[in-house]
Amino acid sequence: MRTLTIGLLGCGTVGRGFVELLDAERSRIRARYGLELHVTRILVRDLSRERAGVAAELLTTAPLDVVDGDCDVVVELIGGTHTAGTLVRRAIASGRHVVTANKALLAAAGAELFDDAVRRGVEIGFEASVCGGVPVIGALRRGFSGDSIESIRGVLNGTSNYVLCRMDEGLSLADAVSCAQELGFAEADPTLDLSGEDAAQKLAILAQLAFGEGVRRASVSGIASLRTADLRRARRNGEVIRLVAEARRVPGGVELEVGPRRLPAGDPLATVRDEQNAVIIRGRAIGEVTLSGRGAGSLPTAAAVMSDVIAIGISSRAGARLVA
Amino acid sequence: MRTLTIGLLGCGTVGRGFVELLDAERSRIRARYGLELHVTRILVRDLSRERAGVAAELLTTAPLDVVDGDCDVVVELIGGTHTAGTLVRRAIASGRHVVTANKALLAAAGAELFDDAVRRGVEIGFEASVCGGVPVIGALRRGFSGDSIESIRGVLNGTSNYVLCRMDEGLSLADAVSCAQELGFAEADPTLDLSGEDAAQKLAILAQLAFGEGVRRASVSGIASLRTADLRRARRNGEVIRLVAEARRVPGGVELEVGPRRLPAGDPLATVRDEQNAVIIRGRAIGEVTLSGRGAGSLPTAAAVMSDVIAIGISSRAGARLVA
Repeated sequence: MRTLTIGLLGCGTVGRGFVELLDAERSRIRARYGLELHVTRILVRDLSRERAGVAAELLTTAPLDVVDGDCDVVVELIGGTHTAGTLVRRAIASGRHVVTANKALLAAAGAELFDDAVRRGVEIGFEASVCGGVPVIGALRRGFSGDSIESIRGVLNGTSNYVLCRMDEGLSLADAVSCAQELGFAEADPTLDLSGEDAAQKLAILAQLAFGEGVRRASVSGIASLRTADLRRARRNGEVIRLVAEARRVPGGVELEVGPRRLPAGDPLATVRDEQNAVIIRGRAIGEVTLSGRGAGSLPTAAAVMSDVIAIGISSRAGARLVA
Repeated sequence: MRTLTIGLLGCGTVGRGFVELLDAERSRIRARYGLELHVTRILVRDLSRERAGVAAELLTTAPLDVVDGDCDVVVELIGGTHTAGTLVRRAIASGRHVVTANKALLAAAGAELFDDAVRRGVEIGFEASVCGGVPVIGALRRGFSGDSIESIRGVLNGTSNYVLCRMDEGLSLADAVSCAQELGFAEADPTLDLSGEDAAQKLAILAQLAFGEGVRRASVSGIASLRTADLRRARRNGEVIRLVAEARRVPGGVELEVGPRRLPAGDPLATVRDEQNAVIIRGRAIGEVTLSGRGAGSLPTAAAVMSDVIAIGISSRAGARLVA
């Protein structure tokens, strides 16, 4: 049995989900992978807040208690680029592995962080940064490693898709957004989702993995200016409007585009329901592979984080890779 | 740059696809993974047969020239359980990694081979054994490692699905099978596909990965006794018939079932077209994730083999895991 110690940065929705999931899965992970996962410190903003299921003595408001403390892996779930970036860089520099769900940080500084990690011989897991529990990062990193990828096309923002599905049923954009907020699918400020920026960040991460160099953002637009009548008009033509993120090879590189698109009802992306995500990866040899599922939420995202933590735990031992 | 030497057992459809794909992807694999993949010997049955693109001096009819020869990885593509099993055991015993597309061998002797491999500190890659280029093995081994899997449900046999789609259009079973044979989707003897046995073998591999112990086969039936009128009747009720493979937890273990099922037209498996495959994995935390794509064919299967070879090449070097 090997113990892997974990420093947790952030105890919001995903952080609490991670602690809850670890409690539920601890004995299975022990039996299956021979791994004892142990959270040693948890960074929070406010010590006084009630957090059911989280051991109060692990909490700290001092980031360096976590990052410089006793941990093999730093799990970064605070989001944003500034503080998160500083802490992730410090963790890597001191030889700690990093698992992050932070798409903004990776979209902004991924290449630099990955270079740092290679130099320090540590790993960065980021399955949770795109499409929650849908293992699209793993598919690109490993499943498609033997093939040249030609294009990636997907519905990467669950909030927008939920809003479009409600508008398709007749709600106004404002009412659909309220509805999404009530159900927890949209932030108080939904700008990042509705503008297409969240989908563009996720697409940038996927494209970086799939194509490496030469990726360039062509255009990003969202659904904020759509009206219910636009969806009704599309519907009359047998079409559905979806916020589509697409990366494809063009002469001299790869272009990224995000925007609302009218799709024939038979398009695989037209059938993506509510807050679901779907990604279609087209490889030269493999053809099209579609992955779909819940792209967000506390437990799905926490499970993606957990899968990266386990992979790091396994890969640091000899001969045990097989059973993973 | 690290060189990984490969001994290839078999040069049929997938074997030739592997050689072709390696030629096409060699420079990308070199640049991206720092890996030089080098096929050292190829086992064939008949030296005199014409094989475009395959270097004749690599061919041999003596299995031990390959398995005992200069290779880090043995890629087993001959199929069947007897000879393939003997050669795979010998490769593992001599410390070679193994990559195989052989679902019959894994369904029959997987647990024993995996134990051998762990003892010898080598890896067995088998992404190609289920659903060709659709990375479902990777999803179960890694993406879902943090979650408890509750069920697996899928269309795992492309031949049967192709036949059902043609029968749905009015063809008889016999004509639909001929059609599949002409297009290369069905073997001269399609029994293994039509009986549900091929799907059952694949399901057994997935269930072993997902659930480990306690997996038991409840019932396996195929589509050989279906008639076009059955599909017509289902269609009139808004239903579609698919050959569904399902593994789910029951008291005391996990039960596997394969058989033709009537599905509502909105079921994700009802929309699986022609020779496509689809797998729906349900995790307790993650919910349902669907993976779909071409489940067979020379190049998709070869690409799955290649992804395992690359993973082995990468994991035997320190610090380079990240860029994969």
